[in-house]
Amino acid sequence: MEYAAIRHFGDKRYCYAIAKGRFLIRLEIKKKDAVKVILHMQDKYLPLRFVDTRRECMMELAYSDNYIDYFEAVVEMDMVCLRYFFEIQDTSGTIVYYGNHDFYHECITDIDKMYDCPQTLREEELFELPEWAKNKVVYQIFPSRFATDKEVPDEIWYQAPIDHKADLKGSLRGIINHLDYIKNLGVDILYMTPIFCSKSSHKYNIDDYYQIDPAFGDKEDLKELVQKAHKLGMYVILDGVFNHTGLDFFAFRDIQEKKEQSKYLDWYYIEGFPLVMEWGKRPNYKTFSYASPMPKLNLQNKEAADFVIDVASSWIKDCDIDGWRLDVADEIHHAFWKRFRKEMKAVKKDILIVGEIWHFAGDFLEGDEWDSVMNYEFHRSVMDLVAKQKICPSVFMGNLNFIKGNLNQSLDGYLWNIIDSHDTERFINTVQKDVKKLRMAAALQLLLPGMPMIYYGDEVALEGGPDPDCRRGMLWDENRQNKELLSYYQTLIRIRHNYPELTEGIVQEQYTEDEKGLIYIKRQLGDKYITLVFHTQKGTINLPELKGLQNLVTEQKFLGSLGDYEAAVLVE
Amino acid sequence: MEYAAIRHFGDKRYCYAIAKGRFLIRLEIKKKDAVKVILHMQDKYLPLRFVDTRRECMMELAYSDNYIDYFEAVVEMDMVCLRYFFEIQDTSGTIVYYGNHDFYHECITDIDKMYDCPQTLREEELFELPEWAKNKVVYQIFPSRFATDKEVPDEIWYQAPIDHKADLKGSLRGIINHLDYIKNLGVDILYMTPIFCSKSSHKYNIDDYYQIDPAFGDKEDLKELVQKAHKLGMYVILDGVFNHTGLDFFAFRDIQEKKEQSKYLDWYYIEGFPLVMEWGKRPNYKTFSYASPMPKLNLQNKEAADFVIDVASSWIKDCDIDGWRLDVADEIHHAFWKRFRKEMKAVKKDILIVGEIWHFAGDFLEGDEWDSVMNYEFHRSVMDLVAKQKICPSVFMGNLNFIKGNLNQSLDGYLWNIIDSHDTERFINTVQKDVKKLRMAAALQLLLPGMPMIYYGDEVALEGGPDPDCRRGMLWDENRQNKELLSYYQTLIRIRHNYPELTEGIVQEQYTEDEKGLIYIKRQLGDKYITLVFHTQKGTINLPELKGLQNLVTEQKFLGSLGDYEAAVLVE
Repeated sequence: MEYAAIRHFGDKRYCYAIAKGRFLIRLEIKKKDAVKVILHMQDKYLPLRFVDTRRECMMELAYSDNYIDYFEAVVEMDMVCLRYFFEIQDTSGTIVYYGNHDFYHECITDIDKMYDCPQTLREEELFELPEWAKNKVVYQIFPSRFATDKEVPDEIWYQAPIDHKADLKGSLRGIINHLDYIKNLGVDILYMTPIFCSKSSHKYNIDDYYQIDPAFGDKEDLKELVQKAHKLGMYVILDGVFNHTGLDFFAFRDIQEKKEQSKYLDWYYIEGFPLVMEWGKRPNYKTFSYASPMPKLNLQNKEAADFVIDVASSWIKDCDIDGWRLDVADEIHHAFWKRFRKEMKAVKKDILIVGEIWHFAGDFLEGDEWDSVMNYEFHRSVMDLVAKQKICPSVFMGNLNFIKGNLNQSLDGYLWNIIDSHDTERFINTVQKDVKKLRMAAALQLLLPGMPMIYYGDEVALEGGPDPDCRRGMLWDENRQNKELLSYYQTLIRIRHNYPELTEGIVQEQYTEDEKGLIYIKRQLGDKYITLVFHTQKGTINLPELKGLQNLVTEQKFLGSLGDYEAAVLVE
Repeated sequence: MEYAAIRHFGDKRYCYAIAKGRFLIRLEIKKKDAVKVILHMQDKYLPLRFVDTRRECMMELAYSDNYIDYFEAVVEMDMVCLRYFFEIQDTSGTIVYYGNHDFYHECITDIDKMYDCPQTLREEELFELPEWAKNKVVYQIFPSRFATDKEVPDEIWYQAPIDHKADLKGSLRGIINHLDYIKNLGVDILYMTPIFCSKSSHKYNIDDYYQIDPAFGDKEDLKELVQKAHKLGMYVILDGVFNHTGLDFFAFRDIQEKKEQSKYLDWYYIEGFPLVMEWGKRPNYKTFSYASPMPKLNLQNKEAADFVIDVASSWIKDCDIDGWRLDVADEIHHAFWKRFRKEMKAVKKDILIVGEIWHFAGDFLEGDEWDSVMNYEFHRSVMDLVAKQKICPSVFMGNLNFIKGNLNQSLDGYLWNIIDSHDTERFINTVQKDVKKLRMAAALQLLLPGMPMIYYGDEVALEGGPDPDCRRGMLWDENRQNKELLSYYQTLIRIRHNYPELTEGIVQEQYTEDEKGLIYIKRQLGDKYITLVFHTQKGTINLPELKGLQNLVTEQKFLGSLGDYEAAVLVE
């Protein structure tokens, strides 16, 4: 047994409330090292001579990543404090006892040794997440390119490649006019990239946070958009760009004018005057990504932080939006996000807070900052499996399980699983327009737990290279749309909505066969079963044992085989 | 190489600011797996085609626990964001590259792969600790038994064993009268267990948080005590019992009287009426340790939390105390402690906040809750090494390094290393009055980094069994004091104060020899060297190579050998 890989801390990472009186306890062991793990526990305070509170419980091998097995137990109890340790049996039958970071060869049930292994389980620290968002489908809209209510000639609208400066006259009214399309696709949640006053097409350099950019419309349009979306049963999430502002934002304007005398000097990280703002030169103030038009806000300054809190609160109050997606969120410090969460949840209890972060983000997801992240780890894993074919199915599942194993269990069903975004080359371009591969990526995105985020146009095979070309005009011309793909997306989303066992079901059986490119998952919810089969490569795979089940994807009996990059969802 | 044991997360556990522009990066590898580790890094945003920001830096094997080697690098930079990965070479010469939780056999220097390994280093998240407290010596006083200003006959004062009810008339005036003794011992910081109105001798069930218990004196006495301590260059820390109150605390009184109608109902966790308060029965309200006289406060209730904040703030404001030691602190939720820290540091910037927790407490020590903990892990390790002889020197050092390796580096020098406390049997009793063993325990406590906390009387060999007998009257009768031991404590503390290389010096050489019971540590600060030798067992150890150095403990030339449980501090 590899002691160096065995890990458990009596803290929020491994041991926490998942409901009132229910606690999850997690243990990491080197993959395949253990065949049986028992959790021994007893009340922290009651001595055995008073009452014997000792209990044992088998821990389940919940999932494995590429190196680690995650064992879990759910403990129901009204004790405040627990003492506990683990009994681990390896493949040779050897048993070791592990408690408080130490290993023993004899069972440590007597109170003296158990004394060393306490943990206080604080049910006050429940991770409370907006139930309405769990496993729901998000649709990302880039408003300047999604839909217009003006007359825009096709040669302008469909220009390709497209650059930052292209003006397609996209607007909120355009979006409102296409809400039916979005609803019809099956979308639950609309997420729009920034819509406030800004001189760029992407509007990530904001000059006025209290105004909708006039090119997009006005506050009344947003209210109407939200109301109409709500009426259709959809939710609306805005993009909060709080890491940096635009150059003409009043505080930065003031600094440009009054220099050292500006009372807003501490709102930014200014290194000297005159300000070096020329494009291409390294600015002498902190920015996002050395981009001079995006000066970084100092959110340790109370007035600056208060300003952001007011902006974010007022859009919830004024327009009844349902969430904030937070731009460049990991470049803002934790203390600010803790305040942000408290203040936003006070305005609207069920507001959804989603951080943009490109890597594993556990420390923002401990219950007191964000509710979710844009899951770029998912993006990378799908790219590696399907587009680049750099990894095999077992590693793909291992990658997903690494995230699972290192996050609070309450987050299951909340990560924004993405294939594309406004910051990446479109998947369809990466795979040289091989729609079969896009169908597989979509199947992985739409059939696994999480919140699949569809980047506008992916569903009709809208093409586009890296930023800015990935932000082309949406394909509204039906002749330009891949209707078959659209219908495929609709089918998968419909299955997702109609079969809760797909996302909420307990994994009953799961395996991968790397040589065959197979991922097999069988889930159970109550007396309902659902089986997922992903054939993640070219060629044909035969699955005769599944023949005859109903395939929800084709709406026909499953014939027992799958072709290139095909997926099936099977029920009795 | 054991991949399952290699760990690094791009978060506050492994990668954080230690000063403005200085960042620590830590990597865990299975013990003895790696012979060389290189950190490769570059700016997150600047592409290589613009400017080559790539740098390499050798990581140092900073310390090892019993299973893991901790490699560290300190990076000085003005970048906001970094991409980085690790190059690990094992004993066979094989090299593996580790970045973003993945392993590669080829170097991943191109931006494409580096793209997967970013981390934002936020210097906003510095762990700011009170500099005045670092490595200082704490003296714990149990006020009802430490010193009295009344006439108390010896047969009362020195009664043994002693129980909870014994009334020795200890008082603040008694402490004031003995400040010279404490100062003379070499103490820097006084920590008193609770002094507010309470019906018990320990006063951990408080009925009035705004009043000093009349048996101890009044607020003026505390002010005088703090002023006189400050004048002597000492600091004063009070005990904050905020997890639970006494039964006669106004809010719980109100509940006893008005029952369901009490407006303080939500200040506690009441399960039903009538209240079951009889001693020996399990109370029907949450308590500390099922003890009916200690009903647990609900600090999720805003008014209750506000009350505690006001209590804690007002004692700082009114009496200028320097810190709070927090009782049963891990049974209170994190969100409260985050608020507590903010509010206390706003009242007095340099206030010290120390949590009572009996096990590893990393998640309370992330910079936004406590500054330190009562280090019971140290207590256990010293017990195991010296008293119980269950572990050998290498495991002892491994235990200390486990704590080090899993805490923020800024905490070095802040943990309250304890041998005894008011909650444990006195060490001298555990070792059947073998003073030599106590001398060794004291040497480990007083000569290693951290904040040694001496429990009153240990320095003169005051005896006592488990709680409540460990709370006997202090030995003021010089005939009862072990004067030789007192002088030993004074010597070790004087060395600690006079030789900063002891606590601040960089470890230049360190090893253990388990069979000989030897711990050897050589530290360097500037051009000063200091060598520590602990002989942690019976018998004689010969160390001829150290012969002739000045031994600060004996104030003589070192003769080249140490006897039973002897320690030496050697300088040129």
